Amino acid sequence: MSKVITSRELDYSKWYNDIVVEADMADHSAVRGCMVIKPHGYAIWEKMQQALDKMFKDTGHVNAYFPLFIPKSLFEAEEKNAEGFAKECAVVTHYRLKTDPNNPGKLIVDPEAKLEEELVVRPTSEAIIWNTYKGWIESYRDLPLLINQWANVVRWEMRTRLFLRTAEFLWQEGHTAHATKEEALEETKRMLDVYANFAENWMAMPVIKGVKTASERFAGADDTYCIEALMQDGKALQAGTSHFLGQNFAKAFDVKFATKEGKREHVWATSWGVSTRLMGALIMSHSDNNGLVIPPRLAPTQVVMVPIYKGEDGLKKVSEVAHALKEKLQAKNISVKYDDRDSQRPGWKFAEYELKGIPVRIAIGERDLANGTVEIARRDLLSKEIIKLEYVDTYVAKLLEDIQSNLYNKALERTKCMTYKVDTYADFKKTLDEKPGFILAHWDGTAETEEKIKEETKATIRCIPLNNEQENGLCIYSGKHSTQRVLFARAY
Amino acid sequence: MSKVITSRELDYSKWYNDIVVEADMADHSAVRGCMVIKPHGYAIWEKMQQALDKMFKDTGHVNAYFPLFIPKSLFEAEEKNAEGFAKECAVVTHYRLKTDPNNPGKLIVDPEAKLEEELVVRPTSEAIIWNTYKGWIESYRDLPLLINQWANVVRWEMRTRLFLRTAEFLWQEGHTAHATKEEALEETKRMLDVYANFAENWMAMPVIKGVKTASERFAGADDTYCIEALMQDGKALQAGTSHFLGQNFAKAFDVKFATKEGKREHVWATSWGVSTRLMGALIMSHSDNNGLVIPPRLAPTQVVMVPIYKGEDGLKKVSEVAHALKEKLQAKNISVKYDDRDSQRPGWKFAEYELKGIPVRIAIGERDLANGTVEIARRDLLSKEIIKLEYVDTYVAKLLEDIQSNLYNKALERTKCMTYKVDTYADFKKTLDEKPGFILAHWDGTAETEEKIKEETKATIRCIPLNNEQENGLCIYSGKHSTQRVLFARAY
Repeated sequence: MSKVITSRELDYSKWYNDIVVEADMADHSAVRGCMVIKPHGYAIWEKMQQALDKMFKDTGHVNAYFPLFIPKSLFEAEEKNAEGFAKECAVVTHYRLKTDPNNPGKLIVDPEAKLEEELVVRPTSEAIIWNTYKGWIESYRDLPLLINQWANVVRWEMRTRLFLRTAEFLWQEGHTAHATKEEALEETKRMLDVYANFAENWMAMPVIKGVKTASERFAGADDTYCIEALMQDGKALQAGTSHFLGQNFAKAFDVKFATKEGKREHVWATSWGVSTRLMGALIMSHSDNNGLVIPPRLAPTQVVMVPIYKGEDGLKKVSEVAHALKEKLQAKNISVKYDDRDSQRPGWKFAEYELKGIPVRIAIGERDLANGTVEIARRDLLSKEIIKLEYVDTYVAKLLEDIQSNLYNKALERTKCMTYKVDTYADFKKTLDEKPGFILAHWDGTAETEEKIKEETKATIRCIPLNNEQENGLCIYSGKHSTQRVLFARAY
Repeated sequence: MSKVITSRELDYSKWYNDIVVEADMADHSAVRGCMVIKPHGYAIWEKMQQALDKMFKDTGHVNAYFPLFIPKSLFEAEEKNAEGFAKECAVVTHYRLKTDPNNPGKLIVDPEAKLEEELVVRPTSEAIIWNTYKGWIESYRDLPLLINQWANVVRWEMRTRLFLRTAEFLWQEGHTAHATKEEALEETKRMLDVYANFAENWMAMPVIKGVKTASERFAGADDTYCIEALMQDGKALQAGTSHFLGQNFAKAFDVKFATKEGKREHVWATSWGVSTRLMGALIMSHSDNNGLVIPPRLAPTQVVMVPIYKGEDGLKKVSEVAHALKEKLQAKNISVKYDDRDSQRPGWKFAEYELKGIPVRIAIGERDLANGTVEIARRDLLSKEIIKLEYVDTYVAKLLEDIQSNLYNKALERTKCMTYKVDTYADFKKTLDEKPGFILAHWDGTAETEEKIKEETKATIRCIPLNNEQENGLCIYSGKHSTQRVLFARAY
């Protein structure tokens, strides 16, 4: 059975879903809104984790693990945060099941095992972490506290989509504590840079760094910085956020430290996170109608080798060459899989690895061997070349770099082409409908205008770009004075 | 403030707890029975994960991720499994909080957001995974399915202890599907061997491999294999289990496959897991009254270097040598930390790293430098040597291996010395009380006898050792005939 991917042009949303499911990235589960991350998808997520984890550690952070559950009384301590997440909290109320007396073999919740205080399944961990930090921070010597956590979180979303919006998702959340506002702000921006670096250099996905408007801020933050990427369909995707939390959580949980001068002051905080949502961003940045396209730096398997042969003798001859080549490639730190299964034909394998986005495919045929060559196909351009066996390892090493930068440049070019400067509200609406993408437009800086535009067009202010060009203009909606353009888009 | 560890001899249980908390391994949290894994503890867990994950992948397994929640109707499908875990299930019943109308600023569970079907927080994932496998397995070509998951699980335990028994813990759970009973049995034993290999060669913890009696089996398994280790206080600790699940889950979830011959048969299953409980086992295998002792292969930092100097000039001289040495050690794949903080004195640092179990400490003093030497202390024996600077890297590389094998040999020797053959019930009880350890004794093979012994002595049959010596004897309790001794102990 060959797997068919709906074409992007026909139905973008179905195209996306087909790739996720058919390329073995993820699957729907029996639990409403929760996904199963399948082995191929999880292997890519592991590559993402490794790269990010190294970047976190290189910037001085350590990992730890905090409880899945947050007692309701802690959860509500920072009011804005609590209010922001209350509507999507899964709540544990009981700690035991028992056999249904009316229906043996079935279980019911044991009413006698009701918790005295309900437990919230963490939608984010500020509350439980700051309650813990209270016991860890005494003096300036304990600061900065630079901790990251890899965890699952739950947000009860009503409309879910694989990877992009699921009730449970995997993420990392950094939570840091600092002696001064300046240090905390510096950390907030440092981690935004880490995310931008990861997005561009690993995911090959260009991003715009910026700061959110007040109404788009993380609940409980004084400022939310973000990276925004543009998907192939012209919709924006928030790919990572880094929050300056001020002293909000320190005050809510009464976390003070003794300064060098012996005074007691509230600590300053940041938090920052990226999630399995990035998997959705990766898919929508590079994939095509043939399936997934993985940037080489995140590919669990960078090269697949497929033998083409007749009979056992043929396979033996080809395999000898293949094993030697595999070793040469591995010596260059390239991850290689040799697929010599006899249960599937080469054509089936070609289609399968194309669908799964493996960057490079090497076909080794008996006939090629006579010429001392192999056929090398690159997934991004779907083009092939015949290469002398002796040069294959250097050729492939170079090719993987080429594919990585080609994917980035293509996405960058697309983002540039799909970014429009617009000066009137009529043009704004027309552009949104006819040429979806990023729109740079003047805004009067008020929440009212922002809300009206959102209501009327479904476009939101993605961010106020960092180092934004200052330019006088008139708000597209109110006509009031404005000093800079902000980034609008419809978004995931 | 120097941290004080209660001595083992005075109060073993308090000694254990002091090490966990004071060596920054873990901490109690605001959530009943849930722990916070602190950075130093988490770094050791990461080393465990890396080693195990590589072993799983080397034996053909891939990772995936399945939902945290299990709908009650799926959970109850395999009756024995459901019955076994029902009493300790955290249950999500609602998906929203709202502001308390009588108490603004406080939240209450929104009664209108009651789930139609309750969700169990996974205590183990067989149910959700086998429900998923149903959609993944069609024919023999899809088998074996060899999947592992790293995840958090929740079991509502009434009496908890850091790492050893917590309501939430981290673990890995392998879940495999096979075409034949033989293959599944082979896998069950293969993974038991992986666990034994990990325990002995990474944790330096000798284990007894065996099979559980029927009454100690995993709920839903046909057979449970285990590794059992002996702690310093003579109590046993189950360090890992590998279950042969027969066709129980395949039948409960109706998972069949088409054989090569075109028949449809139920799939055979295994599952296997180890958890953060291993952290407790690690502590209780090697630590002493000075604190934690980490086997070098699991130490996030294997060597710490501490400068001893006067004034800035002194530090500069010492640091030059230290940095060069650090590079030489790193070139040998040794992880090194140079602690040149001026906020703490050398004596404080010595105590701190001893407490945290860093295997090797190098003190670099100005005076030593004049002689071209440094002082090297090993954590396991608390002994020191003066070593010529030029030999330090080879000396330390060798020393780390020595420490690893010394810890293993010491634990092995202790386990041997604390394993007793006992032939009467009177001796059995006396040994348990006066010389706690493993007891090899004859048992008549009945659940009744096993239960009586447990009731009367709190000792359980830890396992029937694999490749057990066959020997005629009389059951210590019933006096009935027996063909082999089984392994008894009081256990964690």
